Parts: sequence; structure tokens; C-alpha cells
Amino acid sequence: MKLNDAARDLIGAGADATLVTINPDGSPHVSVVWVALDHTGADDELVTAHLSEHKKVRNVRGDDRVAITIVATAVNKELRPYLSITGTARIVDGGAPELLGDLAAVLLGPDSGFPPADAPPGYLTRIRIEKVGGVGPWVG
Amino acid sequence: MKLNDAARDLIGAGADATLVTINPDGSPHVSVVWVALDHTGADDELVTAHLSEHKKVRNVRGDDRVAITIVATAVNKELRPYLSITGTARIVDGGAPELLGDLAAVLLGPDSGFPPADAPPGYLTRIRIEKVGGVGPWVG
Repeated sequence: MKLNDAARDLIGAGADATLVTINPDGSPHVSVVWVALDHTGADDELVTAHLSEHKKVRNVRGDDRVAITIVATAVNKELRPYLSITGTARIVDGGAPELLGDLAAVLLGPDSGFPPADAPPGYLTRIRIEKVGGVGPWVG
Repeated sequence: MKLNDAARDLIGAGADATLVTINPDGSPHVSVVWVALDHTGADDELVTAHLSEHKKVRNVRGDDRVAITIVATAVNKELRPYLSITGTARIVDGGAPELLGDLAAVLLGPDSGFPPADAPPGYLTRIRIEKVGGVGPWVG
């Protein structure tokens, strides 16, 4: 599916997000990641990058169901607006330093020095968006 | 288990957090909640309040494994510091308006008018802390 304009604006050129994956025993695993939106295909996809084969990467190989949450900085009446996306993920080999470099420029500034020049190719997690929820103009 | 001082400071008198529960089909469910720390017992517990029996409450009744993530506002070199807690949760009837009132005073200010005076007793989710992770001075 495609995200609406409010959701695209929230993610912008890159955002901090929590990524939930499922451990082999069925319990939840959470990490904070940078996320980018790829809206060039027939369906929008969220993309995160990993320089090494973290637990989240291994979890996705075992169970592709994930959730991504992005919390807005503005505060509304009762709770922070947030965008909650559930979907299915797949791991793609390589491409991590390039995406991390793009996201670091957005989220850390142009001179972050991250990732290092000798970073390994790593992995991308590409997430097919199946359901959009949360609190904010991206819902309903 | 007990949280260390850095983790206690991050939560303070109340914090925004993402709460992950497990849906009946094993997929992850995420919502943003306010969380308080109860450090009066032998083990620290995180407590959230709900005025109605949301999906997260029903999920905990089916599978007590949860994850709570609190993202710090400061930015470090590469990623925001965050506290990731996994544990087991139980639902307690009642007490929601009192806790929500305390948390609203901290997170929204003294005159938020939330929750309304006629709010139902609702539910508390009390989370036994089993593992602390993330990035920041609360780890290791």
C-alpha cells in the first residue's frame, strides 16, 4: 500500500523509529533504527540498514512480521502523535553503507563521519507496509 | 530486577514509551503509552494505565510477554540513546484515572483536564522487568 502525505511528511528523508521483530520463542524484540521511505515502487516500502547481522536481521529471517513506530515530536492534547506500521520484511544483502550515509546526513548532519569508509556491505531490511495505525493525520 | 540510576532518571516521574504486545496470531502490536516506574517493591515494575480494554490489554491476557522502549531526547554520535525493557505483564483492574492523572500532571502540565472526572476505573498493566537493553548508560 501507499502512505498518505502526512505519513510521508513525518518520515521525510529519514526518521528515528522503533523496529519490532519476533524472537524464535515468540517474544518481542525492539531496537531503535533509522528508517527511510522508498516510494518509487508500486507499493511504498520502509528500509533500514545494518552493518552486521544483528539479532533483528536473524529474527526477520525466521519470522517476517515486523512493526515500525515513529513518534512525532509535537505534543497534542493527550498523547504524542505517532505512526505505527505493521508489515512483512525481507533481508537484502548489501547496500547498508550507502543508505546509512544518506540517513546520517539527514539525521546527524553532513560531517558525521558515519558510516566509516571501510564499513562492510551489510544488509537492508525492506518492509512491505500492510497496515497503518497510531494517532495522527496518517490514520483514517 | 531493579533498574540502575540512569534508567530511573530517564523514566523520571513518567515518560512516553512504546509498548509492544503480541497478537493472538503471534504478530507484534505497538502502541505509545505513558509509563511510570514503581520502585517500592522487591523488584521494580513499570506501570501503564488504560481507561478501556484496548487490544494491548487483551493481548497481555493472552500472552504476557511485552517490551517497553523509551527513547531519550538527547542525540549521541550515531543513534539516540534508548532504554529497551522486556518483561512479563499482568493486568490489574482499576486505578487507571489516578495514575493517568499523576502522569498527565508530569507530561502535560497541571491543568490538562485529563482524565475527565467521570473516567471509568479502567486497568493497569504492571510489567515485571526481566531484561534491560538498548543504547545508553543503563546497559552494562
